[in-house]
Amino acid sequence: MIVITSNQTPEEQIQHIVGEIEKEGLQAHVSRGADRTVIGLIGSVNPKLAEHLRQMKGVENVIKISKSYKLASRDFHPDDTVIEIKGTKIGGGNLVVMGGPCAVESAEQIDEIAKLVKAAGGQVLRGGAFKPRTGPYSFQGIGVEGLIMMAEAGQKHGLLTITEVMTPEYVDICAEYADILQVGTRNMQNFDLLRKLGTCGKPVLLKRGFSATYDEFLNAAEYILAGGNPNVMLCERGIRTFETYTRNTLDLSAIPVLQQLSHLPVISDPSHGTGRRELVEPMSKASVAAGADGLIIEMHTDPDNSMTGDGVQSLFPDQFAALLKDLEQLAPLVGKSFNTSKAPASDFVRV
Amino acid sequence: MIVITSNQTPEEQIQHIVGEIEKEGLQAHVSRGADRTVIGLIGSVNPKLAEHLRQMKGVENVIKISKSYKLASRDFHPDDTVIEIKGTKIGGGNLVVMGGPCAVESAEQIDEIAKLVKAAGGQVLRGGAFKPRTGPYSFQGIGVEGLIMMAEAGQKHGLLTITEVMTPEYVDICAEYADILQVGTRNMQNFDLLRKLGTCGKPVLLKRGFSATYDEFLNAAEYILAGGNPNVMLCERGIRTFETYTRNTLDLSAIPVLQQLSHLPVISDPSHGTGRRELVEPMSKASVAAGADGLIIEMHTDPDNSMTGDGVQSLFPDQFAALLKDLEQLAPLVGKSFNTSKAPASDFVRV
Amino acid sequence: MIVITSNQTPEEQIQHIVGEIEKEGLQAHVSRGADRTVIGLIGSVNPKLAEHLRQMKGVENVIKISKSYKLASRDFHPDDTVIEIKGTKIGGGNLVVMGGPCAVESAEQIDEIAKLVKAAGGQVLRGGAFKPRTGPYSFQGIGVEGLIMMAEAGQKHGLLTITEVMTPEYVDICAEYADILQVGTRNMQNFDLLRKLGTCGKPVLLKRGFSATYDEFLNAAEYILAGGNPNVMLCERGIRTFETYTRNTLDLSAIPVLQQLSHLPVISDPSHGTGRRELVEPMSKASVAAGADGLIIEMHTDPDNSMTGDGVQSLFPDQFAALLKDLEQLAPLVGKSFNTSKAPASDFVRV
Amino acid sequence: MIVITSNQTPEEQIQHIVGEIEKEGLQAHVSRGADRTVIGLIGSVNPKLAEHLRQMKGVENVIKISKSYKLASRDFHPDDTVIEIKGTKIGGGNLVVMGGPCAVESAEQIDEIAKLVKAAGGQVLRGGAFKPRTGPYSFQGIGVEGLIMMAEAGQKHGLLTITEVMTPEYVDICAEYADILQVGTRNMQNFDLLRKLGTCGKPVLLKRGFSATYDEFLNAAEYILAGGNPNVMLCERGIRTFETYTRNTLDLSAIPVLQQLSHLPVISDPSHGTGRRELVEPMSKASVAAGADGLIIEMHTDPDNSMTGDGVQSLFPDQFAALLKDLEQLAPLVGKSFNTSKAPASDFVRV
Repeated sequence: MIVITSNQTPEEQIQHIVGEIEKEGLQAHVSRGADRTVIGLIGSVNPKLAEHLRQMKGVENVIKISKSYKLASRDFHPDDTVIEIKGTKIGGGNLVVMGGPCAVESAEQIDEIAKLVKAAGGQVLRGGAFKPRTGPYSFQGIGVEGLIMMAEAGQKHGLLTITEVMTPEYVDICAEYADILQVGTRNMQNFDLLRKLGTCGKPVLLKRGFSATYDEFLNAAEYILAGGNPNVMLCERGIRTFETYTRNTLDLSAIPVLQQLSHLPVISDPSHGTGRRELVEPMSKASVAAGADGLIIEMHTDPDNSMTGDGVQSLFPDQFAALLKDLEQLAPLVGKSFNTSKAPASDFVRV
Repeated sequence: MIVITSNQTPEEQIQHIVGEIEKEGLQAHVSRGADRTVIGLIGSVNPKLAEHLRQMKGVENVIKISKSYKLASRDFHPDDTVIEIKGTKIGGGNLVVMGGPCAVESAEQIDEIAKLVKAAGGQVLRGGAFKPRTGPYSFQGIGVEGLIMMAEAGQKHGLLTITEVMTPEYVDICAEYADILQVGTRNMQNFDLLRKLGTCGKPVLLKRGFSATYDEFLNAAEYILAGGNPNVMLCERGIRTFETYTRNTLDLSAIPVLQQLSHLPVISDPSHGTGRRELVEPMSKASVAAGADGLIIEMHTDPDNSMTGDGVQSLFPDQFAALLKDLEQLAPLVGKSFNTSKAPASDFVRV
Repeated sequence: MIVITSNQTPEEQIQHIVGEIEKEGLQAHVSRGADRTVIGLIGSVNPKLAEHLRQMKGVENVIKISKSYKLASRDFHPDDTVIEIKGTKIGGGNLVVMGGPCAVESAEQIDEIAKLVKAAGGQVLRGGAFKPRTGPYSFQGIGVEGLIMMAEAGQKHGLLTITEVMTPEYVDICAEYADILQVGTRNMQNFDLLRKLGTCGKPVLLKRGFSATYDEFLNAAEYILAGGNPNVMLCERGIRTFETYTRNTLDLSAIPVLQQLSHLPVISDPSHGTGRRELVEPMSKASVAAGADGLIIEMHTDPDNSMTGDGVQSLFPDQFAALLKDLEQLAPLVGKSFNTSKAPASDFVRV
Repeated sequence: MIVITSNQTPEEQIQHIVGEIEKEGLQAHVSRGADRTVIGLIGSVNPKLAEHLRQMKGVENVIKISKSYKLASRDFHPDDTVIEIKGTKIGGGNLVVMGGPCAVESAEQIDEIAKLVKAAGGQVLRGGAFKPRTGPYSFQGIGVEGLIMMAEAGQKHGLLTITEVMTPEYVDICAEYADILQVGTRNMQNFDLLRKLGTCGKPVLLKRGFSATYDEFLNAAEYILAGGNPNVMLCERGIRTFETYTRNTLDLSAIPVLQQLSHLPVISDPSHGTGRRELVEPMSKASVAAGADGLIIEMHTDPDNSMTGDGVQSLFPDQFAALLKDLEQLAPLVGKSFNTSKAPASDFVRV
C-alpha cells in the first residue's frame, strides 16, 4: 500500500503517519519528492489500518497495491475452479449453456421448455420462481410452487436447474429444489444474502451489479467464498451506461478480465445484457469468442405472452437450437468443448 | 400508453394488436403515418397488458405516458407530505439536519457526538449499527448493542435517531430502537426489505440507489407506501458516473425533480455524495438552495480514527456547528425555517 | 411524431397546438386519455416544427418516431454499403484488418511495421501523423512528414493507409496521402470537420465519440453523407463508463445494432476499446463473432518505447500474426471471408 | 510518480526499469513488498518517460502523483485569477450573470433581450451565431451577421458579449466582435481550436466536455493558457450520466473542486445542465451557494418559438429578473457581491 501526502504536509505529521504504520508492525519506506512525500508500506496491511491512514491529516490519497479479496483471486488460486454438478463440469475448458424462461409460469410451460433446452444441447434449465420487479404492481413470480415444477422438469429431462434467490430466508428452500442458486444484479451487494449463500451447500451464480466495478464484483464473490462455499460462478449481465437503445451495455471485456483476476468460471447473459432478442445471437457468439465459460439465455415457447414482459429478449425455440449448433462450431476455436448431441439425459436421471 | 409499430407491420398484425387492447376493455386509437402506425390506448393500462404488447410481433416500442407509481406521485397527492415525529416536522417548509458518525463505536462516542449535534442545532442523530461493506474483511458494525447506545444518546440529548437496516429480519429490532429507519443505496431494490418496511410502523429514509433513475427510485418508494407506510423520505446521496475524483456525483437536480414528481420530503447527503470533507460545506449549502427538506451529514469527534474509514468525509464538530449557523441564514431565502437555538430537548424527552 | 400534453392542459391550448401542426400542412390525430391528451402527427415533420412544438406551453414531451438521419439509415438504403479501394472491399461479407502503430515515428519504423502487417495478412496500414493528446506537453505527432512516410510504406508493401485528421484545414493534405481518413473519438461532433470530409473525395472512418449514443453517432455520419461522400465506415472504439480497469468499455452490441440501423460497414477497435494488450486478442475475436466488418488494431515492433505511450495496448508482431491466423478460422463461421495468404501486394502496387 | 511492478517481475527487469529512470537524471526509490515491488521517482518527470515506463514489461501500473497541468493549477498560482473586461470583474468575490437567447435570431430580438438582461442586472449578453447541432438538417445559426447584431446590442445596452466559436478559422472574426469567446462542450478537446484561442487576445469561457473528467478539463484549459492567454473561465454545464430525465446531470461538486485545483473562475450553466426551464431557478441558486463565480443562463422573450428548440430550457424575462433579485440576497451569504441596480451602462459605453 502507498500513502501519498499532500503538498505542504509538515515533517512532523509525516513522522506521525510513519509511527502509525510501524505501530502495526509494518515497515514504512519514505520517498521525499519535489512536491510531496510518498510512504510505501511493506507487509500485509489490515483494512482498518488502511482506513485509518486514509483519514489522517496530510494524507491526500492511499493507493492499494494488493487486492482486497483473496479467495477469489487467481494470485492465491492459480488453477481454474471447475464446478462439477451431477456429472456436468462448469469451468476449465467446458462450455455450459443455461436456457429457459424468465419466469416459471406453469408445470406444462416449464416441462415443454425443458424438453426443448435438452434437445438443443443445453445442460441447465433456468427459470425464476421469485422475480425482482421495479414496481410493486408487476408480476412477482409464482413462488415455491414454481421451484417444485422446475425441479421436476429438470429431473425428467436430465437438466440441472438454476433459479434466483432474493432474500436470506428463502435460501434453504431454493437450495433444496435447485442445483444452482442465482443472485440477481440488484442483490450483488445484499451482504446478508451473500453470507447466507456461503453456507448453503449449493453452487452459486453471482450476477454482476449493473453498476459494479470488477473489484466490487470480486469482493461480493469473496463474501460467499469466505463463508465456506468454493463453488461460485461470476456472471456478466450488462452494465448501466448512458446508452439506452440496449437495456444494458454487455461488457464483454469483463470475461477475459475476470478470468485473469480470478479463477472462477465466468458466464455471460446476453439476454439481460442487451434486452433485445435480435442481439442475443451475435452477443452469444461474441461471448464465447471472448472466452466465456458459459451462457445463460432466455428462451420461451410463446414470448408474446410471457408473464414478465421479458419475452422481448427471449429467443424462440428454433433460434435457440440454431444458436447452439453454431456455438458447437465456434467453441473449439477458442479451446472450449461443447456438444449438442451428447444427450446424457438418462444417465443424468440416475444420479 | 402508446404502441409504435415497426416499419413494415402488415395491417393484419395491427388489427391483431388492436384486438388484444380491446379485449381488455380499452379503446385503441390508430394513427397511420407515412412510415409506421401508432396506436394510442385510452384508459388505465394493466402492467401485464403493457408487457404483453411490448412483446408482440410488429411492435417496435411501447411508451408509457402515465407513471408506473401512484402513491408516491404528486398527481395523486398534491400536498407535501409532512412527517411528524415527537414534535419534529420533516417536509413542508421545515429544514431538518441529521448528524452523527458513520458508525456507532461506543456509548461514550455516540453520547459525545449527540451532545454536539444537539448543541449545533441538529434535530436527528445518525449512526450505523449494521454497516454494509464492500468486502467481508472490513468492520461490519457493532450490531444491536449499537442500536441501544444510540437510542440512549438520542433520548438523553433530545434528538431523534436514524439508523440503517440491511435485511428484513432486523427491521423489527431496528424499529424498536430508532425513530427513523434508513435503507442504504445498495438496498434500494431489495424488495423484500422494502415490503417489510411497509408494515414496520416507523418512518423510512430511502436512499437512492447509486445508479437508480428517478423512476426506479420512486417505484422503490412505492413498495413501502403500498405496504401501508405513508412516511417515506427520499434521499439523494450521489450517483455513480465516470468522474472518480469525488466518491459519487451528488445530483442536486434530483431535489427539485423529486419534489415535482412526488410529495415526499427530499433529504440530501453531501457526505456520501462527495466523499470529501472539504466539499460537504459547499454542497450542503447548495442542497438547501436547491430546496432540500433536510440534510444528513457525517460528523465525528475523531475522524482520523473512525472505525469505518469514512472519517475522510466526516466534518469536525466545529465545522458542523459553523455550517448549521450558515444554514440558518440561508434557509429563509428559499422559504425554509431552521433555528439553531430552538433547543427543545427537555420537551422532547417528555414525549 | 407524437406530442404528449401535460395533465391539465386546457382544450383551448390543445387546439392551439393542433393549429400549429395543421399550419405546416400536416394532419393531427388527437387521442384524449384519462390523464392526458396525445397528438399524433401524420406526414414528414420538419425539425423546426418539432422544436417549436416541444417548447409550447402544455407540451410535456415530444417523441420522434422516425429517425433524424436519412442517408445513414437502412430504411432508405436497404443494401450493405461496400467501399472498394484499390481492389480491397470493405463491408458486405469481407473482413478487413487494419494494423500499425499509434504514431508514425520514422520512415524505418513504419516501413518495418508495414512489412509485418502485410505478411500477417492485414490489408490496411494505420498510423498517426497528427495526434490528439489530453495535455499540451505530450508528443503531438510528427505531422506531414509522417503522412509521406506512411504513404510510401503502404505503396511499397501493397497496403492501403489510414490516418487521423484533426482539423478542417488538414483534410486536403491528408486526403492527398492517405487512402482512408479517420475522425477520432473527440472529433465525432466537430461539425466543421465533418462537413469538410463530406467533400474530400476519400473514404472516412468515423470513430464513435466515447460518450455518443448510437443516434448521435449516425447523425454525425449523416453530416459526411449529406456533404456528398457515401463512403463512411463506423468505428466502435469503446465508451466511457464507471469502470476504470479498462481504458474504455468496448460496446460490442454496437456492431449488430449499427448494422441494423444503418447500411454502413462497422469496424471495431479493440486496442483503444480496452487499452490493455492482453485484452486485444479476445476482444478482436469477440468483435468478429459479433459481426464486425473489420478491425483496427495497434501493433508495434517496440511497444516499450512507443512515442505516445500507447504501447501498453499494442500487440507485438508475433501476437498480431497469430491473431490473424485465428481470425481466418473464425470469420467463415459468421459469414465473413478473410485470407491471410492472399498477398495481392504486387497487383496492388500497379493500381 | 510511482511505478508498480507486477507480481512475478524478476529482479533483473526491476533493475532495467531503475536504469531507465536514472538515465533521465532522476532518482528511483525501490520498495520491495511481499507481493510486488514499488519504485518511486524523485524529480520532475517528463511525460515521455512516464509513457515509456508504463509500457515496459513487468510494469503493472504507473501512478502520477503530480498533476499534468501546471499553468491551470493553484499549486503554481495560489491567488484567484480575476479577469477584468471593460470594468467588469470576473472571479475573486464577484458574481457575474450572463443571459440571453440560445441563438441570435434577428437584430430586434437580440436588442430586446439585451435590454431585459441589462434591466435585470446581468452584466454579459450571451447568444449564438454559430450553433453546433447533432444533425445536419437542424438550424445552424445565422453566422457573422449574428455576431454584428449582438455586438451592437451589447454596446447599446452596456453589456459585455459572449459567443461560441466552433472552428479555428472563425476565431479571429469572433474575437473582433465579442468580448468573450466560448468553447462548447463538444469542442473541449478540439485541440487546434484551443491552440488558436491561446493567441486570440480575448478571454475564453471553456465549457466542460459532457464526459470530461476534471483532469481532462484542466488539461484542456492548459492548452489555452500555454498559448499565452491567461484569461480562461471554466464552465460546468452538466455531464452525461444514465439519468435521462434531465438533459444532463449538473455536477455542482465541480465548482468547489475546480476552485481548489485551479485559480480560474468557475461559471455554472444551469440551462444546459438541466435542459428544463423549471429547474433553472433552483439550480442557479444551488450553483451560487456552491460558490460559483458566475452563471450563464438562457433567456428568451418568446421561448415557444426559439429557432433552436432550446426554448424549453429558456427562462421568460420575468423569471430571469426575479431570479437575479433572489441571487442578490443569496450572494453575500457565500461571500460574493452582486447588485442588480448598479446599472453602469452609460459608463460602459464610453469604454
